[in-house]
Amino acid sequence: MDGKPSPPPRVVIVGGGFGGLAAARALARLDGAGKARAGARAEVLLIDKHNHHLFQPLLYQVATAALSPGNIAAPIRKILSRQRNCEVIMGEATDVDLRASTITVSGQKLAYDYLVLAAGARTNYFGRDEWARYAPGLKNIEEAIDVRCRFLLAFEQAELEADSEARRAALTFAIVGAGPTGVEMAGAMAEISRHTLRRDFRRIDTHTVRVMLIDAAERVLPGFDPALSARARRDLEAMGVETRLSTLVVDVDERGLTVERAGERERIDANNVIWAAGVKAVALGARLGAETDRQGRVIVGPDLSVPGHPQIFVVGDLALALDAGSGKPVPGVAQGAMQTGRSAGRTIAAEIEAKAAGRPVPRRGAFVYDDKGTLATIGRNSAVAEIRGFKIGGTVAFAIWAVVHIFFLINFPKRLTTLAEWTWMYFFYERGVRLITGEQWVPKPVKIPPDPRLK
Amino acid sequence: MDGKPSPPPRVVIVGGGFGGLAAARALARLDGAGKARAGARAEVLLIDKHNHHLFQPLLYQVATAALSPGNIAAPIRKILSRQRNCEVIMGEATDVDLRASTITVSGQKLAYDYLVLAAGARTNYFGRDEWARYAPGLKNIEEAIDVRCRFLLAFEQAELEADSEARRAALTFAIVGAGPTGVEMAGAMAEISRHTLRRDFRRIDTHTVRVMLIDAAERVLPGFDPALSARARRDLEAMGVETRLSTLVVDVDERGLTVERAGERERIDANNVIWAAGVKAVALGARLGAETDRQGRVIVGPDLSVPGHPQIFVVGDLALALDAGSGKPVPGVAQGAMQTGRSAGRTIAAEIEAKAAGRPVPRRGAFVYDDKGTLATIGRNSAVAEIRGFKIGGTVAFAIWAVVHIFFLINFPKRLTTLAEWTWMYFFYERGVRLITGEQWVPKPVKIPPDPRLK
Repeated sequence: MDGKPSPPPRVVIVGGGFGGLAAARALARLDGAGKARAGARAEVLLIDKHNHHLFQPLLYQVATAALSPGNIAAPIRKILSRQRNCEVIMGEATDVDLRASTITVSGQKLAYDYLVLAAGARTNYFGRDEWARYAPGLKNIEEAIDVRCRFLLAFEQAELEADSEARRAALTFAIVGAGPTGVEMAGAMAEISRHTLRRDFRRIDTHTVRVMLIDAAERVLPGFDPALSARARRDLEAMGVETRLSTLVVDVDERGLTVERAGERERIDANNVIWAAGVKAVALGARLGAETDRQGRVIVGPDLSVPGHPQIFVVGDLALALDAGSGKPVPGVAQGAMQTGRSAGRTIAAEIEAKAAGRPVPRRGAFVYDDKGTLATIGRNSAVAEIRGFKIGGTVAFAIWAVVHIFFLINFPKRLTTLAEWTWMYFFYERGVRLITGEQWVPKPVKIPPDPRLK
Repeated sequence: MDGKPSPPPRVVIVGGGFGGLAAARALARLDGAGKARAGARAEVLLIDKHNHHLFQPLLYQVATAALSPGNIAAPIRKILSRQRNCEVIMGEATDVDLRASTITVSGQKLAYDYLVLAAGARTNYFGRDEWARYAPGLKNIEEAIDVRCRFLLAFEQAELEADSEARRAALTFAIVGAGPTGVEMAGAMAEISRHTLRRDFRRIDTHTVRVMLIDAAERVLPGFDPALSARARRDLEAMGVETRLSTLVVDVDERGLTVERAGERERIDANNVIWAAGVKAVALGARLGAETDRQGRVIVGPDLSVPGHPQIFVVGDLALALDAGSGKPVPGVAQGAMQTGRSAGRTIAAEIEAKAAGRPVPRRGAFVYDDKGTLATIGRNSAVAEIRGFKIGGTVAFAIWAVVHIFFLINFPKRLTTLAEWTWMYFFYERGVRLITGEQWVPKPVKIPPDPRLK
């Protein structure tokens, strides 16, 4: 003993999404003063490759020109600026060394005493990653801007296209995956085409736009009650969305996709395909060497730790956790990530406090998920909700959706302007962020037809 | 005569900025009905390579994380959606054939009867275009996002940088050019560093940030009255900006720049250099074969047409036009572009109406510029204004700046939310759009230092 005080235990959290932030906040009391018993301290390092926390459930609104990225993203540093025991590092975690208790971040090893992996999920092309080129997913701001530009550029191209088949392909939008993201995208795209853009073009009739929603399941929103699925499908079709269910995607290329239904193949010419068919866990989970499911999620114990590694927790979309209440898996939604993240953070905080006080470490409990309900919005005055057993559709569900999302945005600096945008959009069918931006569009100019005045 | 009615005269306008839009609007009455005498008609084609009109004077607010691109850009189609005689084409005009009266847009020739060139200006590196890599300008949304990402990333890098010289270079921001854009950038960057980001970092003291404003002129805002220049310089220095005047930039590279003052060279290590030193006309102007000035601007006659080509007008930043009132050049500001654009549009409209009515074409008048005043903002409660001979500084000028800009944003869909953002920023020193986005940042990760816990 050289008398030098040993540093406080270090908790490394990977991911600044809902799960990682909830874990970090649960450790806020371990700042060496304040509420922590026996002055227990922890050093928290939060690692994220982006500098911002993203409200992913609203990402489709960026992709459909309703909101700016700034409305649904907030700097992680800002969110955690008052938590003095927490440091934020912008970097990418690529590997974990279980024996040395280190994690590799942007090529550098960092030691941890506890590790919380909350790195989330990415788009799942089910083994056909080459489709990503033609069918962007919707997991981050870059992809949302990409989808927005492709969508808007399609109208620019169609306006100048003389050939009717090419024009039809330009104005066909195929959305693969009829979960909440796909349904929300399809509804928004139909609404923009029929209302927002109606007066903007001279040659094309934006009512001829085809929005197709394709899924291998036999109903839309398969996670919801069948009655709500049927309701959602009716609402979508009333808005002009074509639903293609029990339909498999067998190929995607630059000019469209091939689908198969009941053994029959069909070619769909669609310049724009959007992939909302599913997610898989990020690669980091597999580096733990623990058991994973087909989507790459780490199968965690009842306390959310990795079997055999009690100091490593996996939360949010990266984990397959069972709800001790229902025995069912915790769903991959924001509230699942928040609750698992908070639970892991609290478990770690309790152990650090106990050790600092010389008390025995408390026995870990099993995680119980508190399902506050599920929501999906379809369009104006149309949504579906399942809340504590109640099944709600239409305007009432839409109002609930709006209230819940405004409430959850309360931590975002732009909640007031976001509310203003939504009000504006609701009353005037206006979507102000109809911008085609980014150097990547420069090499792909719109094709101008020959001038009939010049012969 | 085969009895087929001849098509209405076609007016091609290149550029959807302040000048081009004003020209298009002045032709709105020629829709074949309405106000036009004798049912005179014109077909108006507006060409722009972007799909949006940009409020360029506020671009620095996107670069400094105060506003989203959607706040200061609006779809050109939306702005002109109710003008039925106007078509918008997204494409790039690259050449003009004076003999054939055609313009080449994205590789395709289009005929014109009248041509209005309003394609604006780009950043001027004064023959050293290779500096563009290291010192981005500020002329479009892509560049503004680029500057924002570089600025924010510098703090992320400095936070993890162990070497004090490297940290100092990361936190040195050199702005070249002390005109309104440079002054506004410098003031905003100093304010963000000292206020907005103050609590966000654990290792760096954001008060050590150096913001340098460099210009070859002997005062800041050389276009203003000397007393206001002195006032602006005092205000900037009180905010912590170092002004380096009568100072030439002789080299720029990846790690900083070399300047020269009174024969003495000095090396400044600055990872971030922003170029606000001047503009030059876009290349299209030179394709006319008309006389141009040193900045590439087309020297137009008193009626804003190209000498020898009465059917071709050049307006806005692409033109060197003389104000018939003062005999001085019309300045390259938004109101100059709007007024010259409107004047050209009105001249064309009057001629088309006269011809349709069989009347003699009216004699063209000389353009008279109505100078409504000049404004530059420096920071909170600090601006300078010269309005109709009055010279104003400080809070009063700041209030005028705010009112004028809110008024001019009145055509933008997001004027209300922009006002909300500004109010929020003013009272809480908050800048919500602190996002590092874009694939281009992925290959340039922040360097993580070795962990002292691992030895």
